[in-house]
Amino acid sequence: MAVVPNKQVVLKWFIVGAPQEKDMEVREGTAELKVPEGSGGVLVKNLYLSCDPYMRGRMRENYSSYIPPFQPGSVIEGFGVAKVIDSDNQNFKIGDYVSGITGWEQYSLITRNEHIKKIEKDDIPLPFHLGLLGMPGLTAYAGFYEVCTPKKGDYVFVSAASGAVGQIVGQLAKIYGCYVVGSAGSQQKVDLLKGKLGFDDAFNYKEESDLSAALKRCFPEGIDIYFDNVGGAMLDAALVNMRVHGRVAVCGMVSLHAYTDPEGIHNLFTLVQKRIRMEGFLQSDYLHLYPKFVECVANYYRQGKIVYLEDMKEGLENAPAAFIGLFSGKNVGKQVVCVARD
Amino acid sequence: MAVVPNKQVVLKWFIVGAPQEKDMEVREGTAELKVPEGSGGVLVKNLYLSCDPYMRGRMRENYSSYIPPFQPGSVIEGFGVAKVIDSDNQNFKIGDYVSGITGWEQYSLITRNEHIKKIEKDDIPLPFHLGLLGMPGLTAYAGFYEVCTPKKGDYVFVSAASGAVGQIVGQLAKIYGCYVVGSAGSQQKVDLLKGKLGFDDAFNYKEESDLSAALKRCFPEGIDIYFDNVGGAMLDAALVNMRVHGRVAVCGMVSLHAYTDPEGIHNLFTLVQKRIRMEGFLQSDYLHLYPKFVECVANYYRQGKIVYLEDMKEGLENAPAAFIGLFSGKNVGKQVVCVARD
Repeated sequence: MAVVPNKQVVLKWFIVGAPQEKDMEVREGTAELKVPEGSGGVLVKNLYLSCDPYMRGRMRENYSSYIPPFQPGSVIEGFGVAKVIDSDNQNFKIGDYVSGITGWEQYSLITRNEHIKKIEKDDIPLPFHLGLLGMPGLTAYAGFYEVCTPKKGDYVFVSAASGAVGQIVGQLAKIYGCYVVGSAGSQQKVDLLKGKLGFDDAFNYKEESDLSAALKRCFPEGIDIYFDNVGGAMLDAALVNMRVHGRVAVCGMVSLHAYTDPEGIHNLFTLVQKRIRMEGFLQSDYLHLYPKFVECVANYYRQGKIVYLEDMKEGLENAPAAFIGLFSGKNVGKQVVCVARD
Repeated sequence: MAVVPNKQVVLKWFIVGAPQEKDMEVREGTAELKVPEGSGGVLVKNLYLSCDPYMRGRMRENYSSYIPPFQPGSVIEGFGVAKVIDSDNQNFKIGDYVSGITGWEQYSLITRNEHIKKIEKDDIPLPFHLGLLGMPGLTAYAGFYEVCTPKKGDYVFVSAASGAVGQIVGQLAKIYGCYVVGSAGSQQKVDLLKGKLGFDDAFNYKEESDLSAALKRCFPEGIDIYFDNVGGAMLDAALVNMRVHGRVAVCGMVSLHAYTDPEGIHNLFTLVQKRIRMEGFLQSDYLHLYPKFVECVANYYRQGKIVYLEDMKEGLENAPAAFIGLFSGKNVGKQVVCVARD
């Protein structure tokens, strides 16, 4: 039975405030490259790991979230693309590629097989199963079509617009016939939004002293749909710029993760004035749409109607830095860590 | 042409913060008891006037609200029940009773007839057309059935629960088969909620040091529906007590009217965690439901399934005090001012 070195990323303790590299440790473990017989599990070699803001929630003690916390001292879990190297499960055979929940390590034994699914190695790049065709993609798809209830011609604002989810939302909205503006945190990202991603307009929120005025400039007629990835001050500014019967899809509040006592939201009175619907959602409530979503988005990709920005970090040892970069907007596009290419 | 004295209540200036009696003036005007020929108007004797929190919005300059501001020096407008004493309009004849937008004065010339409708003097008390069967009633009806999307057995929380709208929401929810708890600002109101209005439970928010803990005590399983009449700290406390897929119908934020720089809302992150829908609404979007609403609620009233608490202040000169009392919760039930009985 082959025992090999197995580099792993471990959460050191429950954390408060913005996550830092020192909250995680890269350690040298070992792995047996064999699935215990009768376990029904699979042993995988991890290829690509996904860095997602929701994971911050799992690093908090007593977080009454939709998903239980990580345990300090244990390997961090997240979405990944991996290759099966041993299997005790007839649904997966050696050489299969899978995507789903795996460990932040070189080799993982996965026994909860409901969390992985087989994927094909075809013209879609493998790591796209963590973004465009993965959880962020379904988030964008369900959020836009099911929560935002778009109409052709709607004015759509997307925050964190070049991020894993935002870039898909904006492109779906453009295809749908909406006018789309995105915000992001650097000139490089703004250029990508207006150039490569086809947004009608974009602005760098870090260079705006008055976010509400920036939105008024971009949306003189007001906003029909705000796809909110950040919460906080941007949400407050969007609320006063909404149109009657506007919709706010609350996808995430990444701005909150950095603070233990964030500033409150002051402009909720506009909900009544403008009869606004504001709705939080999770992609996990829309898993029934997964086949429809994959067909739709993969087709758009193959037709060249959607592009996808990916920020690939090489090496598992760089995963902590890649993850913490999410909270200061270091990533340009979907943040992925490459553990191995095959 | 008879010219008679006409007592009037006038807004003196645009106001900031909580309204005060001195912001309004009671003055002695005059009225011609004759409708100008060809005007298509009606001249009415005002009987009952409605004090509603939304009117505060009309006392603010440059308030980009759904309804234009009052003009300083002009007679305040609001809902009222009145009797026609002269008419140049074939839809209204002398002696008819009407309800709709009128002036805070003894006699009003109403030329915008789309704002009034004929009512019958029957077994429903005339001033109930300002509450149970008026704008607050339709607000409660549309808010509960259309915005809250209730299910039998839902846990329902209503703030300002003994107020014009809240008491109807709570009773409709009870009839629907929900578990209903209300908050109010005095022991007397709490007793009325639990006794006369049939709420399952109620609490005095002024005696709770921790609103979230109070809600946890009343809703150990959490809240499915929060009918929010107040905003502010109560909304923040309700948000952390919501159940998955909960709904918050935002009807008003009376707590905000008292402040120019109110405390923000901190717990919107629960919108994502619990997939909560939060929706502002105005009864004016649901006027098509008016006939169905009147039939439903009048039937419940006649069957004794709904009662309605009314706080009647005698005399137009007391209207300013009655109005400002809304913002400190002085009223017990729907606040009405009696100008004349017939």
